[in-house]
Amino acid sequence: MNLMKSLIPAAAIVALPQMGLAQEATATGEPALHTQYIFTTLLFLMAGFLVFFMAAGFAMLEGGLVRSKNVAMQMTKNVALFSLAAIMYWLIGFNLMYPGDGWTIGGWVGPFFSTTVLDPVGVPAEEAALDYASIGSDFFFQLVFVAATASIVSGAVAERIKLWPFLIFVILLTGVMYPISGSWQWGGGWLSEAGFSDFAGSTVVHSVGGWAALAGCIILGPRIGKYKDGKVHPIPGSNLALATLGTFILWLGWFGFNGGSQLAMGTVGDVSDVSRIFANTNMAAASGAVAALLLSQILYKKPDLTMVLNGALAGLVSITAEPLAPTLFGALWIGAVGGVIVVLAIPMLDKFKIDDVVGAIPVHLFAGIWGTIAVIFYGEANLITQLTGIVAYGVFTFVGALILWSVLKATLGIRVSEEEEINGLDMAELGMEAYPEFSKG
Amino acid sequence: MNLMKSLIPAAAIVALPQMGLAQEATATGEPALHTQYIFTTLLFLMAGFLVFFMAAGFAMLEGGLVRSKNVAMQMTKNVALFSLAAIMYWLIGFNLMYPGDGWTIGGWVGPFFSTTVLDPVGVPAEEAALDYASIGSDFFFQLVFVAATASIVSGAVAERIKLWPFLIFVILLTGVMYPISGSWQWGGGWLSEAGFSDFAGSTVVHSVGGWAALAGCIILGPRIGKYKDGKVHPIPGSNLALATLGTFILWLGWFGFNGGSQLAMGTVGDVSDVSRIFANTNMAAASGAVAALLLSQILYKKPDLTMVLNGALAGLVSITAEPLAPTLFGALWIGAVGGVIVVLAIPMLDKFKIDDVVGAIPVHLFAGIWGTIAVIFYGEANLITQLTGIVAYGVFTFVGALILWSVLKATLGIRVSEEEEINGLDMAELGMEAYPEFSKG
Amino acid sequence: MNLMKSLIPAAAIVALPQMGLAQEATATGEPALHTQYIFTTLLFLMAGFLVFFMAAGFAMLEGGLVRSKNVAMQMTKNVALFSLAAIMYWLIGFNLMYPGDGWTIGGWVGPFFSTTVLDPVGVPAEEAALDYASIGSDFFFQLVFVAATASIVSGAVAERIKLWPFLIFVILLTGVMYPISGSWQWGGGWLSEAGFSDFAGSTVVHSVGGWAALAGCIILGPRIGKYKDGKVHPIPGSNLALATLGTFILWLGWFGFNGGSQLAMGTVGDVSDVSRIFANTNMAAASGAVAALLLSQILYKKPDLTMVLNGALAGLVSITAEPLAPTLFGALWIGAVGGVIVVLAIPMLDKFKIDDVVGAIPVHLFAGIWGTIAVIFYGEANLITQLTGIVAYGVFTFVGALILWSVLKATLGIRVSEEEEINGLDMAELGMEAYPEFSKG
Repeated sequence: MNLMKSLIPAAAIVALPQMGLAQEATATGEPALHTQYIFTTLLFLMAGFLVFFMAAGFAMLEGGLVRSKNVAMQMTKNVALFSLAAIMYWLIGFNLMYPGDGWTIGGWVGPFFSTTVLDPVGVPAEEAALDYASIGSDFFFQLVFVAATASIVSGAVAERIKLWPFLIFVILLTGVMYPISGSWQWGGGWLSEAGFSDFAGSTVVHSVGGWAALAGCIILGPRIGKYKDGKVHPIPGSNLALATLGTFILWLGWFGFNGGSQLAMGTVGDVSDVSRIFANTNMAAASGAVAALLLSQILYKKPDLTMVLNGALAGLVSITAEPLAPTLFGALWIGAVGGVIVVLAIPMLDKFKIDDVVGAIPVHLFAGIWGTIAVIFYGEANLITQLTGIVAYGVFTFVGALILWSVLKATLGIRVSEEEEINGLDMAELGMEAYPEFSKG
Repeated sequence: MNLMKSLIPAAAIVALPQMGLAQEATATGEPALHTQYIFTTLLFLMAGFLVFFMAAGFAMLEGGLVRSKNVAMQMTKNVALFSLAAIMYWLIGFNLMYPGDGWTIGGWVGPFFSTTVLDPVGVPAEEAALDYASIGSDFFFQLVFVAATASIVSGAVAERIKLWPFLIFVILLTGVMYPISGSWQWGGGWLSEAGFSDFAGSTVVHSVGGWAALAGCIILGPRIGKYKDGKVHPIPGSNLALATLGTFILWLGWFGFNGGSQLAMGTVGDVSDVSRIFANTNMAAASGAVAALLLSQILYKKPDLTMVLNGALAGLVSITAEPLAPTLFGALWIGAVGGVIVVLAIPMLDKFKIDDVVGAIPVHLFAGIWGTIAVIFYGEANLITQLTGIVAYGVFTFVGALILWSVLKATLGIRVSEEEEINGLDMAELGMEAYPEFSKG
Repeated sequence: MNLMKSLIPAAAIVALPQMGLAQEATATGEPALHTQYIFTTLLFLMAGFLVFFMAAGFAMLEGGLVRSKNVAMQMTKNVALFSLAAIMYWLIGFNLMYPGDGWTIGGWVGPFFSTTVLDPVGVPAEEAALDYASIGSDFFFQLVFVAATASIVSGAVAERIKLWPFLIFVILLTGVMYPISGSWQWGGGWLSEAGFSDFAGSTVVHSVGGWAALAGCIILGPRIGKYKDGKVHPIPGSNLALATLGTFILWLGWFGFNGGSQLAMGTVGDVSDVSRIFANTNMAAASGAVAALLLSQILYKKPDLTMVLNGALAGLVSITAEPLAPTLFGALWIGAVGGVIVVLAIPMLDKFKIDDVVGAIPVHLFAGIWGTIAVIFYGEANLITQLTGIVAYGVFTFVGALILWSVLKATLGIRVSEEEEINGLDMAELGMEAYPEFSKG
């Protein structure tokens, strides 16, 4: 997902005689520019609705992994965070992230503050970015990415955070923090100049969500009862069927996430690359799941469904930094390492008493780092620039999120009262239950 | 979704020399007609499967908002209504709604009774509607719309209606009533002649479903215990995770609902318009959800998840009459007003003791009316014609549905016995439970 | 889905002057070859993600139809089987099934053992299979089919089979058995030579899964308590909302399953055929559901939701052998017969004490046989060749599966202990519960 917005001014294209363009295209056999524009726009729309659906995937995964007394709240957060992300990204984020020819501070921060303006209705070909795609499709595709970042946070800090402070964090994450750091790489900023490589966002999207979640978990502290008398007390999720559904939906959405990041579908080479990405993405998910299944069987003598689900997701995150270049075997081992990381990292976080309810930090941060490093084996990147990018995103997001969570804690407070936490957020904050008729064991 | 079936006879196109066509196309750079046909057909297929999936969305939303003792019945109704709608629309509806050059009564009612005939296998280009799309894709796209109308009704009248009378209503709604009134606007009838504007069906689909639901709720009466001793007794839904999933699925499907209603994707302008529609549709849903979240917080001091879900849906319904012309800001405020309407209207209906189980009437009827009026701010329509359309659809559908429900009541009876209602429709009518192992609180 | 891999060497296409190609294409008005390649590749990607999602559909259907004590295990099996299928199909299956010009044994078995190699990154048009689609998209599309076959088995043998033996069966089914028999028809083998016709796999996919499931049910024996004192004791599923969701997801995925099997979308005729297939597929599902609804009402005086769901699925399986040629009325009656078959066959299996937990054998095997026979009414096939194919797949798969299950039984054992079965596989094999907070009735 490099340089989303075309930096070539549309005027330059218009200057070419249309007839000539078309003939040039047919001479090679590839579709004419207009047709390419339609294909790429269609790619964004299709990939966009798939990634949109990941919002449902996150909601179901998280709703399945929290206790039933917090399910309605987790649903509320997930619908609200997506909605606020959509508004903030229109209001500030999109143009901040993709300044195009606009005003920037030395490639570090885009133009502050302009809302997104779509192509006019029935845009004439002469005014469209024929070498790319329609603004609406690009905006939609980018916006569902930023929502994914926020969804990552909501799972980790579940079951104890107050609704409104969480939503304020989401507003600033999606409107400001993510777009600024995102512009470093995808907005043509300093990291892309430096040669950092992150095809669909192992770092730009997933580790950013993971860092924000980690900061949140640290400032919030663990749930009551998770760590007691020096022991870890697992708190089982209330609905593993729902969590499995969520995982499958996320897996589905990832075809859009990675496939759409090819940013072009109008030539034989581009559509074939999208196909490679689909096949590799699927392979990494599969091998992540299998690795977690085997490793949990070996380590604990019993396979663990939540590990398998997180293994699949970790495989997906791992391949996201470079889903195109690897062979299928490359995707297999990259994904498998992701699955292994998750199985090993989840108990490790517990040692530090970092209470990540759904395993979002291992999946999105740790596997995200791994995937970004793994680019050096197949993609065109070297270890130094990859580590530079990983550290830059880490420092900016983690420090920024720490400050933000701390300010929220000092002002509004971010954690519900002990009594409310024990009774569940649903009754405390919403006055309703997700499953009012089912008695609790 | 104006004039679905091309009124230009295919013969006229065939008359143009094929070579000339192609050259004309490449001269402007736009795809040749054949390619445009493929793109538009693909739009219908893609939008069609998204709208198809709304059937699952309605089922999950309704299944989550009814009590557990009625869930299996609600599932049965949703699968059956979709299936019957599919059959009826093939048998009568499609040709009744889109008479094309066929026999009509002054533009008011299409040809009664002809089944849908698809393009032949491997249709040669000369026989295809090259300026539009394949019949199969158009039929499929239209049919999933009519099913949505029926789904709207099933939620409102849930938890007390008998299965078979409900399905008979569905048969007549989808085979006759919806196609007749639909033809007024989308079949080239008198309302489209009069300048009424309803891009994807705020009125033609959603308010029609809402009117039918309102008539049903009135004739049926409220559920036992809902209004007692002059008070409203809320009856909480049994599974808010499921209701949230349903809402996300509906949101997803709406990209097809509105995007597909562009009815063309074969030019730069058309695919860009589909993109605008995606972006606007998403924005209206987001702002509807946020508006309902904020308003329920302000009015009741606690956010209400079901209001947030219905707010998102109301935002979607609101933008459906004109998802193309508004700016993103336009979509934002149109959707937000929809969200506000829902939060205010749900208690209002209770004042009239109209017991709409899932909030379908506020969402689909009230927000549908609002969306149809809002066209005047961005689209090409004036208030008088918009109100004319709203009233025409309202009178026709509401009166027709009232008669139909009354006849069903007088003959078969439409309501289960008091004992059956208390025990739940699942055991009474199906002899099975949706969640047989979970004890009830 | 005939001859997936182009048998025309790409070199032959390259030999044509590119300019000439393009002009030839525009002369007829149809898109140039490059554009056709993009469309068909896109068809595979889109159909592929829809069929991928069927994995979630199977998981939800099965998770809803087993008892809550076995839900987590059923989820584990479904994620694991998909993942293993993906790996095995890359490792062996794809090239075994589609040998192309490669080494074969007289058209009976493809080259043993070569992994799948994708098109290179940014493949130049000269090296791509311009008359077909990119390898990655084809591989992805084929691989989600094989996973469907394995999913069919997992439902039938649920609630009593051990995890690892089941997964070993899946490995051999997806890596070896399915690809070998699949190659007979879709790999250009002897059955396709003989004129057997199975468009999207009523036999090649569904009955193969059904035969493997039948063999498994016979070797495994019924669940404890299902047949006792000469009576059949129905064991209700734990979550019919989930089962309904699963059915809708499968229905959605089937548009990709059948539509993608057109294997081409780059001409007016091909995209119109995909449209026919969508319309027919939907009709058969609808009529299957309605037939099962009516028949269960007539036979048992009460409609049965699980029959309705299985009726829709049986309609879908029935139309899968020939979704293109029938008229909509043809699809209607073919699907309806499928629905009838399911309602009649489920009790019949019980007479033989074959305990198929979800009804997979009636749906996928019996309706699959029916659909394959029904080709003779519309498609180009005669009864003898159709029966030949049905018997060939049946003998090969059933005998092979019987042997495999028997070997597994004799070595590892395939059934959990009586105590484990009574306590549920979730606690016994996974040490976790799917719904730990909901007390069991």
